[in-house]
Amino acid sequence: MAVCSVEVVPLGTKSPSVSSYVASCLKILDNYPDLEYQLTPMSTVIEGDIERIFEAVLKMHEVPFSFGAKRVVTNLKVDERMDKELTMKGKVDAVQSKLSG
Amino acid sequence: MAVCSVEVVPLGTKSPSVSSYVASCLKILDNYPDLEYQLTPMSTVIEGDIERIFEAVLKMHEVPFSFGAKRVVTNLKVDERMDKELTMKGKVDAVQSKLSG
Amino acid sequence: MAVCSVEVVPLGTKSPSVSSYVASCLKILDNYPDLEYQLTPMSTVIEGDIERIFEAVLKMHEVPFSFGAKRVVTNLKVDERMDKELTMKGKVDAVQSKLSG
Amino acid sequence: MAVCSVEVVPLGTKSPSVSSYVASCLKILDNYPDLEYQLTPMSTVIEGDIERIFEAVLKMHEVPFSFGAKRVVTNLKVDERMDKELTMKGKVDAVQSKLSG
Repeated sequence: MAVCSVEVVPLGTKSPSVSSYVASCLKILDNYPDLEYQLTPMSTVIEGDIERIFEAVLKMHEVPFSFGAKRVVTNLKVDERMDKELTMKGKVDAVQSKLSG
Repeated sequence: MAVCSVEVVPLGTKSPSVSSYVASCLKILDNYPDLEYQLTPMSTVIEGDIERIFEAVLKMHEVPFSFGAKRVVTNLKVDERMDKELTMKGKVDAVQSKLSG
Repeated sequence: MAVCSVEVVPLGTKSPSVSSYVASCLKILDNYPDLEYQLTPMSTVIEGDIERIFEAVLKMHEVPFSFGAKRVVTNLKVDERMDKELTMKGKVDAVQSKLSG
Repeated sequence: MAVCSVEVVPLGTKSPSVSSYVASCLKILDNYPDLEYQLTPMSTVIEGDIERIFEAVLKMHEVPFSFGAKRVVTNLKVDERMDKELTMKGKVDAVQSKLSG
């Protein structure tokens, strides 16, 4: 299990607003019920099997092209750990318990 | 006003757990009451004046060295917009209204 | 054709030196003669078919685990363009011609 | 001394070409003779004092606004090491000596 973050950014879109592209990219994840995700202000965080995440991100990257974008820059960050289970909730909880401890 | 995300990653720390470093980095932000922040599973998102954010991130980057880390990799992503106010909440709301609309 | 950059960073490795891990990751690319790559000080830049690049990056990400790393953070940035061919050389040339022009 | 990479990406610029913006950003670095830099296909790599780099990157980030861009996304990655000198050339050489060794 890996925790990843992904941002899909279309360039040359006339308007600086990209939220409709982001929303369309997120709909891809509806086809991946085995992946959990969380929308944050700077990226979408995804938890699950790393091969499935790569497959989904490749599809998310292609979405803005189907809406007419001519160039897309996508950033994928992967965090994977072998010695213990890594989850979105576990990562945040670990930091918060240190903050309050 | 800018919205940024920052990750501070110490290398060569023996243990693969880095949450105590992340917690110490977050304490820096207590000295910046003018900056709002949100902890997410893959980064800390910060909202506020861009010069103040750069100043805070420089200090966050130095924190792991003071705890003995020999190498630190920090990633800072800045999103700034001139035509309308950009906020953490506004960015997420814009996507969610497209998803439900 | 896409141009991508990838960084594979093992955490908790005792030594802050990671060049031997990076070198092992690069050897993966020998199995992808259809992908061109360039080593830079902060990442490896890869040019080629995006599906092949995703496949190769997934394998590069797994390399440090086979050398005993317990946690790996990988960053993949993809730049793809539909209106003209995007190449590593073309991207640098475009900027340099503007600088000298 | 730190080694950093920076990408400055304007959004909503009508044209998907951004090389003229990148070239203008690079001209900022002419005012920082103490910083060395290298243009790569996916980012500009900068070597030098970390406070000077943050100062320069803040200025680079503002450049597209002065050319009419309404939104700019900038990514800064910092690699700093305390146990030995980190240079652009040293980082690439370390990997290449492992590859040929």
